[in-house]
Amino acid sequence: MRLEADKLAEIEAARAEVNPTRRPTVAALEEILGRPLPVLDHGFVRVIDYMGDDAAVVQAARVSYGKGTKQVSGDRALIRYLMRHRHTSPFEMCEIKLHVKLPIFVARQWVRHRTASVNEYSARYSVLDREFYLPDRELLQLVRLERGGETVRQERLFDAPAPEARATAPQSTTNRQGREGKLEAEVAADVVRRMKRAAETDFTLYEKLLGADDGIDGFGIARELARTVLPLSTYTQWYWKVDLHNLLHFLRLRADPHAQYEIRAYAEVLLDIVRRWVPLVHEAFEDYRLRAVELSAAAREAVRRALRGERVDPEALGLGRREWDELVAALPELADAARGR
Amino acid sequence: MRLEADKLAEIEAARAEVNPTRRPTVAALEEILGRPLPVLDHGFVRVIDYMGDDAAVVQAARVSYGKGTKQVSGDRALIRYLMRHRHTSPFEMCEIKLHVKLPIFVARQWVRHRTASVNEYSARYSVLDREFYLPDRELLQLVRLERGGETVRQERLFDAPAPEARATAPQSTTNRQGREGKLEAEVAADVVRRMKRAAETDFTLYEKLLGADDGIDGFGIARELARTVLPLSTYTQWYWKVDLHNLLHFLRLRADPHAQYEIRAYAEVLLDIVRRWVPLVHEAFEDYRLRAVELSAAAREAVRRALRGERVDPEALGLGRREWDELVAALPELADAARGR
Amino acid sequence: MRLEADKLAEIEAARAEVNPTRRPTVAALEEILGRPLPVLDHGFVRVIDYMGDDAAVVQAARVSYGKGTKQVSGDRALIRYLMRHRHTSPFEMCEIKLHVKLPIFVARQWVRHRTASVNEYSARYSVLDREFYLPDRELLQLVRLERGGETVRQERLFDAPAPEARATAPQSTTNRQGREGKLEAEVAADVVRRMKRAAETDFTLYEKLLGADDGIDGFGIARELARTVLPLSTYTQWYWKVDLHNLLHFLRLRADPHAQYEIRAYAEVLLDIVRRWVPLVHEAFEDYRLRAVELSAAAREAVRRALRGERVDPEALGLGRREWDELVAALPELADAARGR
Amino acid sequence: MRLEADKLAEIEAARAEVNPTRRPTVAALEEILGRPLPVLDHGFVRVIDYMGDDAAVVQAARVSYGKGTKQVSGDRALIRYLMRHRHTSPFEMCEIKLHVKLPIFVARQWVRHRTASVNEYSARYSVLDREFYLPDRELLQLVRLERGGETVRQERLFDAPAPEARATAPQSTTNRQGREGKLEAEVAADVVRRMKRAAETDFTLYEKLLGADDGIDGFGIARELARTVLPLSTYTQWYWKVDLHNLLHFLRLRADPHAQYEIRAYAEVLLDIVRRWVPLVHEAFEDYRLRAVELSAAAREAVRRALRGERVDPEALGLGRREWDELVAALPELADAARGR
Repeated sequence: MRLEADKLAEIEAARAEVNPTRRPTVAALEEILGRPLPVLDHGFVRVIDYMGDDAAVVQAARVSYGKGTKQVSGDRALIRYLMRHRHTSPFEMCEIKLHVKLPIFVARQWVRHRTASVNEYSARYSVLDREFYLPDRELLQLVRLERGGETVRQERLFDAPAPEARATAPQSTTNRQGREGKLEAEVAADVVRRMKRAAETDFTLYEKLLGADDGIDGFGIARELARTVLPLSTYTQWYWKVDLHNLLHFLRLRADPHAQYEIRAYAEVLLDIVRRWVPLVHEAFEDYRLRAVELSAAAREAVRRALRGERVDPEALGLGRREWDELVAALPELADAARGR
Repeated sequence: MRLEADKLAEIEAARAEVNPTRRPTVAALEEILGRPLPVLDHGFVRVIDYMGDDAAVVQAARVSYGKGTKQVSGDRALIRYLMRHRHTSPFEMCEIKLHVKLPIFVARQWVRHRTASVNEYSARYSVLDREFYLPDRELLQLVRLERGGETVRQERLFDAPAPEARATAPQSTTNRQGREGKLEAEVAADVVRRMKRAAETDFTLYEKLLGADDGIDGFGIARELARTVLPLSTYTQWYWKVDLHNLLHFLRLRADPHAQYEIRAYAEVLLDIVRRWVPLVHEAFEDYRLRAVELSAAAREAVRRALRGERVDPEALGLGRREWDELVAALPELADAARGR
Repeated sequence: MRLEADKLAEIEAARAEVNPTRRPTVAALEEILGRPLPVLDHGFVRVIDYMGDDAAVVQAARVSYGKGTKQVSGDRALIRYLMRHRHTSPFEMCEIKLHVKLPIFVARQWVRHRTASVNEYSARYSVLDREFYLPDRELLQLVRLERGGETVRQERLFDAPAPEARATAPQSTTNRQGREGKLEAEVAADVVRRMKRAAETDFTLYEKLLGADDGIDGFGIARELARTVLPLSTYTQWYWKVDLHNLLHFLRLRADPHAQYEIRAYAEVLLDIVRRWVPLVHEAFEDYRLRAVELSAAAREAVRRALRGERVDPEALGLGRREWDELVAALPELADAARGR
Repeated sequence: MRLEADKLAEIEAARAEVNPTRRPTVAALEEILGRPLPVLDHGFVRVIDYMGDDAAVVQAARVSYGKGTKQVSGDRALIRYLMRHRHTSPFEMCEIKLHVKLPIFVARQWVRHRTASVNEYSARYSVLDREFYLPDRELLQLVRLERGGETVRQERLFDAPAPEARATAPQSTTNRQGREGKLEAEVAADVVRRMKRAAETDFTLYEKLLGADDGIDGFGIARELARTVLPLSTYTQWYWKVDLHNLLHFLRLRADPHAQYEIRAYAEVLLDIVRRWVPLVHEAFEDYRLRAVELSAAAREAVRRALRGERVDPEALGLGRREWDELVAALPELADAARGR
């Protein structure tokens, strides 16, 4: 009745064999095909199938833009050109299918991306395994973002300033008074213990509510109703199929430091999969999206003034406090320009 | 910090006033604009805004099909023609925006309909109210569907044979041995009491995990993490905007007796709203979708034979047991034809 | 500058080689991979890539519906069950990528199916080949559909009564007075000659408008503007990628006798591709969609009465003339019931 | 048989009356409701209906982000925040329905935006009016973009450097040798005359092919086939319904100097409509999208170096010639930095 590893293994056993194909294949991705890549405490991402490669993007672009693409020599240059100019349709020509195991609260964020296909394990028809997400203790830590002595925001420690590579993270220059926000180790352990106990209790009730059809001597309540007592940390799983363009859009939002840590953990694994699958696209995506920075009309004016050696007055340019902070995080040299050097 | 009724009222207060417009208006819908229509124990549906009416569907069709539509006289006839022939695009020309409060497990089914816009109350940024769904006792009842002495399916009593009006319900002729499946009243009360207690406990932990920023003297865990201990029965709310075509598709699936009772409760309210909004479309939808029946190639052959007075052998026609049962549920007279009358 | 066969061949040459893969492969589809399947006078459909097979649909369904699917034994039965109950999401788990060459007026109907990815050859950036669609002479023939001596509709001969296999074709019982509608052979030849001459003239102007960059000693007008003189019969080409569910939806509408002959010619080739690719899905699609018939509430009542041997009065049941004709086309035996036998 | 202005007027006459509503209304948009705003030689855009206003965006955001939005005071600031951080879902809460008359080659570009609803006038069922697009003479002009004496691209004069306001236009600093590209006035007049004559000839054949049902004593060919001789410059019309988020996405691509002049002409009118409808959203869109500039990882590094007064070597940073040109067009001061000042 449950979806044991056994069951899935059996379903897919026949599929593991190697067959010849005249379709594009990507050796680096074939290597990990079907292998669960672990995420969080019980989750995973498994590549089930894929269509296309870097060359498929190029091929579609060359058909589309015809002569226009001739001026761009080489696949790498063309892919970078497409990424820079947001010619997104060639990226839709690649597709990937994943099997993902994830907590329900992550799944709820995930499905907000509507341009994808989903087949989720149904708790109406099947019984859920006793598996739920518990954060590592250090993930409980909060830091306070202060400005002028006043707390402006509280954040989880793990949403801390991203490495240099993630230039869009605005927090990096904020004065952080993290220590006060930190939970004592014993308190953190206590919290996790309480969360675990609560989930265990919920699962025990869940099983008690089920009945003989579920192999359980319980109350015999319908599965679709029994499941409503389970916590949002419960693991579910699904098949998720998406094209490369929409996957990159997902990653732009979910591999971002503003995304909740737990979904970001999945995004990081997906980024690695993209790197194996379409390395040229991955590189261009890093350069033109993940590490790029967008200048608004006012921000652009600020940069131009600073480049001319003029003093920059953010307020006069219509740059709010928050936007200015974000801009300085991306271009720290602007701070001097604002002070008049 | 919470999204109290007060807060929402305030947000929308300025909007209640009456203004003149040259857009199509529907008096019957204006009447209930902004008024919460109750669903389940704490849920509701509120119409926030709408675009178009029956005439807007007709107008789009007349532009599209031009002369073709001339042969069809009258708006009602044209709308029925469009519905019958699945000319769906004119129905996309109407749009509705709803504010819905619903349990999370219902929300999870709901968002599987991707062609709609959603703005959900975010438990990352805000604290959830202590509100969760508890089923009425009688909703706990299960019935067993038997065939030849063997239990083939268990169902919730409320998923019982739909009234004559819902002709697609296949179960209606199945021999039901409902009584054994029924929970004793005391047991049912016990079950609901346990579900309530569990949810209360989860909410108490949730509040304990929150902190000073939430006006609570708790552990100070981030909201986005604290919420993971809440049960799937917790109420959430969202703005949901959808066009009429996709709303009807939603209703076809969710106002169906196979849908889970709890989402069906919302679908029934939405059906009433559609009736107020676009009465001609609603009528056509009832006749050509909700109460229609589809005959497969084999089922069609069976009907033709029966109409000729011939004996029908479902197996010989390739009709499986289940499909035949569904067919007989829709056309009970076929049972005689199978017995050779 | 042009997209000659040579060019495309070169682009894809490197791709023809056979590689090992652990993905599902479909031998019958691999056979025709990359081979242009001719359609109309200059068009074709080529399968470029694909993902999944019959088993991939089953696999997704088993994950989704879990235990529910256990009762349905065998892949074929499960696929038929999914098709019958419109559980569409498992069909989204298969994907296909096609290279299609088609007249622009067909392309315009085709793109109305929005849930697909397209990379079209761009006449902004490239020069179009001198290729346009000319109908066969017999495709020009019109037939008149009469009822009671009055012409109710004119149709192209090729939109003639579909074979028994296409039960949804409503025209089959209509009294056709085709002969008067027929063009004399010489007239037909004249019409095609005029169409050809007009297209040739348009293309000659097109080329005259282009310039040195296009290898032409013409006026040097921008390609994006020059193309506006070309007729809607001009051939274009594109890469089209779609999932199996949406492909079937396309086929339901476009392989239908009501679809224009020219797009139906493509749909027929696509149907053959589906048969090679996912034979079990194809069979179920034929039985439960293409050859199925839908009974509205009133039509169902009519059938029930006829099955009970009662006389059927379409008007009294609210069945309009047109709907009744369509019903009798699908279930000819009903005609007797209306006459009271 | 034709869709004369009369016909449409009649269809919509009943709708012009003013009714009271409790929905949000926008006076500035009501003013132009139903009025055709002219575009190109025969085209227009008419606002048929709309849903929501600036406040509807704010309302959805406040429900969604709850407390998060409290820190942002005022509707204007919140809308700018949403735009800057690409929180797109609140913009989906507004919807607009337009009646557009446009040449077919423009319609073909337009429908590539799939997230919208379309009801197009069908030339299968109706006869098209004798209306086609002819460019103004000056629109025929081409300019050559040279670099180092070599022509790198030819462009229509109207795709010329956008005003300062459109900072993304990369061409602005390129050395233009426009004069050689210019057509003599007489030649231009000759070209337009030829285009006109060709279209007239095509329409004459079209009408000749039609028959008695079309009120024409022609060959009696089916409309769906006769239309294939018409040029891509033929005007068509449709109802187009889209949400604000997707409309802005459309505008970002089509109000861009890289877009073809003819579709840009429509985009400019749509921009004006957006300004009337949701002025705060329009302003934010101008500042954060239309006039914004995106710095890739390498471009960002170049800017940082220039801000520090260091010499910038584009090549060493991995900035290709084309990307560097685009960057300097957006931030002209960088040119000095590359020369080492």
